[in-house]
Amino acid sequence: MKAVRLHSYGKRPTCEEVADPKITGPHDVIVRIGGAGLCRTDLHIVEGQWKDKSHVKLPYTLGHENAGWVHAVGSAVENVAVGDTVIVHPLISCGYCRHCRAGDDMHCSHGAFPGIDTDGGFAEYLKTGARAVVKLDPKTRPQDVAALADAGLTAYHAVKKSIPLLYPGTHAVVIGGGGGLGHIGIQSLKALTACNIIVVDKSPGALELAKKCGAHHTVLADGRHVQKVKEISGGGCEAVIDFVGEGGAIEDGIAMLRRAGTYYVIGYGGMVNVPAIDMISQEINFVGNLVGTYNDLDELMTLTQEGRVALETKIYPLEAFNDAMNDLDQGRLHGRGIFIPGK
Amino acid sequence: MKAVRLHSYGKRPTCEEVADPKITGPHDVIVRIGGAGLCRTDLHIVEGQWKDKSHVKLPYTLGHENAGWVHAVGSAVENVAVGDTVIVHPLISCGYCRHCRAGDDMHCSHGAFPGIDTDGGFAEYLKTGARAVVKLDPKTRPQDVAALADAGLTAYHAVKKSIPLLYPGTHAVVIGGGGGLGHIGIQSLKALTACNIIVVDKSPGALELAKKCGAHHTVLADGRHVQKVKEISGGGCEAVIDFVGEGGAIEDGIAMLRRAGTYYVIGYGGMVNVPAIDMISQEINFVGNLVGTYNDLDELMTLTQEGRVALETKIYPLEAFNDAMNDLDQGRLHGRGIFIPGK
Amino acid sequence: MKAVRLHSYGKRPTCEEVADPKITGPHDVIVRIGGAGLCRTDLHIVEGQWKDKSHVKLPYTLGHENAGWVHAVGSAVENVAVGDTVIVHPLISCGYCRHCRAGDDMHCSHGAFPGIDTDGGFAEYLKTGARAVVKLDPKTRPQDVAALADAGLTAYHAVKKSIPLLYPGTHAVVIGGGGGLGHIGIQSLKALTACNIIVVDKSPGALELAKKCGAHHTVLADGRHVQKVKEISGGGCEAVIDFVGEGGAIEDGIAMLRRAGTYYVIGYGGMVNVPAIDMISQEINFVGNLVGTYNDLDELMTLTQEGRVALETKIYPLEAFNDAMNDLDQGRLHGRGIFIPGK
Amino acid sequence: MKAVRLHSYGKRPTCEEVADPKITGPHDVIVRIGGAGLCRTDLHIVEGQWKDKSHVKLPYTLGHENAGWVHAVGSAVENVAVGDTVIVHPLISCGYCRHCRAGDDMHCSHGAFPGIDTDGGFAEYLKTGARAVVKLDPKTRPQDVAALADAGLTAYHAVKKSIPLLYPGTHAVVIGGGGGLGHIGIQSLKALTACNIIVVDKSPGALELAKKCGAHHTVLADGRHVQKVKEISGGGCEAVIDFVGEGGAIEDGIAMLRRAGTYYVIGYGGMVNVPAIDMISQEINFVGNLVGTYNDLDELMTLTQEGRVALETKIYPLEAFNDAMNDLDQGRLHGRGIFIPGK
Repeated sequence: MKAVRLHSYGKRPTCEEVADPKITGPHDVIVRIGGAGLCRTDLHIVEGQWKDKSHVKLPYTLGHENAGWVHAVGSAVENVAVGDTVIVHPLISCGYCRHCRAGDDMHCSHGAFPGIDTDGGFAEYLKTGARAVVKLDPKTRPQDVAALADAGLTAYHAVKKSIPLLYPGTHAVVIGGGGGLGHIGIQSLKALTACNIIVVDKSPGALELAKKCGAHHTVLADGRHVQKVKEISGGGCEAVIDFVGEGGAIEDGIAMLRRAGTYYVIGYGGMVNVPAIDMISQEINFVGNLVGTYNDLDELMTLTQEGRVALETKIYPLEAFNDAMNDLDQGRLHGRGIFIPGK
Repeated sequence: MKAVRLHSYGKRPTCEEVADPKITGPHDVIVRIGGAGLCRTDLHIVEGQWKDKSHVKLPYTLGHENAGWVHAVGSAVENVAVGDTVIVHPLISCGYCRHCRAGDDMHCSHGAFPGIDTDGGFAEYLKTGARAVVKLDPKTRPQDVAALADAGLTAYHAVKKSIPLLYPGTHAVVIGGGGGLGHIGIQSLKALTACNIIVVDKSPGALELAKKCGAHHTVLADGRHVQKVKEISGGGCEAVIDFVGEGGAIEDGIAMLRRAGTYYVIGYGGMVNVPAIDMISQEINFVGNLVGTYNDLDELMTLTQEGRVALETKIYPLEAFNDAMNDLDQGRLHGRGIFIPGK
Repeated sequence: MKAVRLHSYGKRPTCEEVADPKITGPHDVIVRIGGAGLCRTDLHIVEGQWKDKSHVKLPYTLGHENAGWVHAVGSAVENVAVGDTVIVHPLISCGYCRHCRAGDDMHCSHGAFPGIDTDGGFAEYLKTGARAVVKLDPKTRPQDVAALADAGLTAYHAVKKSIPLLYPGTHAVVIGGGGGLGHIGIQSLKALTACNIIVVDKSPGALELAKKCGAHHTVLADGRHVQKVKEISGGGCEAVIDFVGEGGAIEDGIAMLRRAGTYYVIGYGGMVNVPAIDMISQEINFVGNLVGTYNDLDELMTLTQEGRVALETKIYPLEAFNDAMNDLDQGRLHGRGIFIPGK
Repeated sequence: MKAVRLHSYGKRPTCEEVADPKITGPHDVIVRIGGAGLCRTDLHIVEGQWKDKSHVKLPYTLGHENAGWVHAVGSAVENVAVGDTVIVHPLISCGYCRHCRAGDDMHCSHGAFPGIDTDGGFAEYLKTGARAVVKLDPKTRPQDVAALADAGLTAYHAVKKSIPLLYPGTHAVVIGGGGGLGHIGIQSLKALTACNIIVVDKSPGALELAKKCGAHHTVLADGRHVQKVKEISGGGCEAVIDFVGEGGAIEDGIAMLRRAGTYYVIGYGGMVNVPAIDMISQEINFVGNLVGTYNDLDELMTLTQEGRVALETKIYPLEAFNDAMNDLDQGRLHGRGIFIPGK
């Protein structure tokens, strides 16, 4: 099959022919890819940011947000059957460790993360596990939902944590609200809370998308944005939800926090760098976010099927991965880029 | 009356004669000080770390952890009467803002913080508000409990937040566990959770106190302590409770965190400086802590009166504030220094 | 002034001339009533259901959901001034007990409940306390919001408790969803959650109002309603929110619960009567609800001012209290009846 | 093998020879029983109380709290191996439904409950599933822990829910605190909270055991016990934890509740019968409890291995099940009866 594989850090991956994955364990599931989302993390992987975290052996296949149809199953798989339309939770989890037992699939003690530390879905077929597949209405087109598997899930997961803070009258600022994760974050805030949603982005086009998604206020990141967010929120926000995490976003975001507020870190690349005295004198918090639980993904699919959350996508054939990466890197991609193999 | 007042940042305060405080508002309460605790924050104030946070006008009286007897009350005060033995919550709060209404006295929108931004309790008398005083058994000696008003309260407040994480089988590491706050933190963990308590400190004497307070494991901060904590905890701790917050403690503490763990920032002086990618790839959290609620203080006083929490103290006359500050600064003070006016 | 006073249980109250209330304590606030809501509890009080709970001395003035303008204040009142437009939280609370300190005004250890255990607001003036008044935009008409003080508050409070249960894909059934509390309950569910809202009512007119308020499904209580709710919800609801609580509603409501579900008791009159074995074999819960916190009321006023929650009201002059009570008793009143003194 | 099987409701079961269970599915696990606890539920099953809940086909083998050694495993089982010492979580759960995904094994949509709705562990061998077995230190004697699988788990699960209510200074009353579940409940309260523990029981011997387990106050159920509990608790308890649930216990328990308190229903047989007006005027709650999660069981095993929780047991050979049932029924059994096959 065709697959987009990374051979060395610092160089773009190549699209090449590799062997199809095979069922080897009783809980294996092989999915024929119908859509695979391109994520800023893919750029960060190529840059080498994940090298010492994933310890993956090169070459390997990228692609960690995937949807498609079940192609083959292991001997003990009963929750899906060949032909089922599925979206793929990013983790292959064991189901037996403390974290899996508590529903926190993303912290599985024996987990694998296709596209990060093992072969992913920028390919015709993906090998995952029975615990990772969410069965969908057969009418669902995988290309329409694939990016919810990671971008959407991460945004939803962070928003869900913020619910108790965001009672009526409060303000949440979404940094990078017009991007692939951010626009799902806005829609999730809208569905799950009654707070006021402020979106900061450096692109006017992104702010347009943010408004369409339900933002109450949009603020261009033009240097006066911290001040504007403080004015709109009456002194600072109860929650900062940061989908950028680099290039000054974190410093700005901290300045937008209200006393006793919480900062949700999602985008990355930069440093969270804050004097301990500021954390204690204001009693503020910083919360990391890594994808989400299987149930989070299931809930997000419900919102999608109810029409409350919709993805903005741009389709590319798998072979055009380089164009897509350039579009994302250079800020030309609002919403999410999706690869379709064989397109 | 006599009071220890700061005249300029960078110079030690002086003990001098000032006018007694007077009742001016209906909710005012004047407390005759029976004991006032010395805190590392007093050293930090003198150093100027709080200058741009408190905006206090110099000179003013230090001292933010106080207990004594009610000396005079305003016209609308009904919850205490002259002569009552009281411990003083650190905040003078309004009772009417959103934060007060939710019990979060420490975030009062119109609050004052004696010893930080207005005259404190290193004096014969302290002016506070009716909402700040917790009535105690008349047999209680103020000098025995004063340091619970801030040191104890802050430790208890942080520990209380950590309860849901610290189910049986988990590990909490207490950094600086033998100090004025730390040894209350250990006793609070012991009273409120069934976790394993590991204490790290750079002083063998402090580790002795930690053991007496209930630590299951003590580790000398000798350079190999991160490795030792990871071994004891089987890979890292669910909670890091850091009472030091400077001099490398934060860097070490982050390295002791387990996946999905939470870092409680209490001590300060240093920077929380962590790559955003580490926060998301491990999904870890940083939680600021500022004193605690009135109800927290009330609960801590219950634990004290039940004998589950006991303060280690060293008594100084008010005039010896300089000796006490030196003892604290130079690591000679285990437990908490307490001033008694007129002693 | 004129006031509607109850002289003996089992007999309708009378409208008569009484002395105006006077400021006697430092935190007293006297409100000139601009609107006072009629509640099913007023009928229950007349019936004698509250006799052994409130221990109120007859005669006294009814009316526990009130709004108006500040007419006079005690010496220590600073949060409102004469002339301010206010809605009145149902409890006069002390601000100093454990419950007040935690924000739970409705459990104040020294509280009074005007209209229940002391003189209420079916009158020209009401005496309450400084902690009970929520300042409103001066353009607000008290008659438009009065019923939020209790009916709205209780509905909002119960819904807020149910948020963690009602993630996307779940079902909440609102029993009596077209009544004075129920229609606020629906709007609150809509604002705060993404669940599916099913409304059961015995009146087709009430179901019309429910639909207008945002119900996804309406079911006439015609004997087949339990079966219908189970079909719509796929076997039972995660939350039953019962605004009726008598006449078979509770038995039906329990049958609509899903495994591990929670029953919110708000309406009353009947018995919660369930075999302990059913509670444990299904692991279901029953949650009582009594008005709500001051912050709940403040949040609800925010939703109202944002246009997300609107009251359906019918205005009566104070003297027509008997007509209003008849309309309520005989099911002719959808939404809420509001008295305006001097109208 | 030998097994104790129920042939008809109302008649005691018989010990007879049946076929050994066989591995038929990939996740099956067969456990050689080393200890099986006798529960009041076994008496209730014989009485027919579960007939319309479990819909089990008679005859079948009783016994729902089991521990032993792994005897055989299905083709996809990797978490345990033949010979491992294990305690058995009461549910065979699927691992794929919403409830399993959230960790709530006891609500599995496709679960089976050996001893309740399929063959249980009063036998030489038990067939369960891979998700149900908790691996133990090989030195553990199954007979010493078996009763933790249900009695202990249920008590621990209920206590864990009560933690947020039971801050220092509060009171929990444990009804039936000297029984098989109750004495674990006391030890769990002791390990997880700093509340005051009051135990009510009708047997002086049970109160002795309760004291040994850590009860702060013991009260004989002699008719004046409600009054005594109210005196000790200063007006009522924040939590009532009821392990009896019949014979007047519930009525008494409700009378022991404090305003805003919560009643944990564990024992059964009687009715929870309370006027809705009492639930709302006091804002009290009733919480059902059904065994617990796998993680709960794991935590309880940790407490046991740390020596914080110990079972009081009495050993019977399997053939003496009738004597054991009589002892339990007639109040001669303090702690828990344990069957050992082949003894």
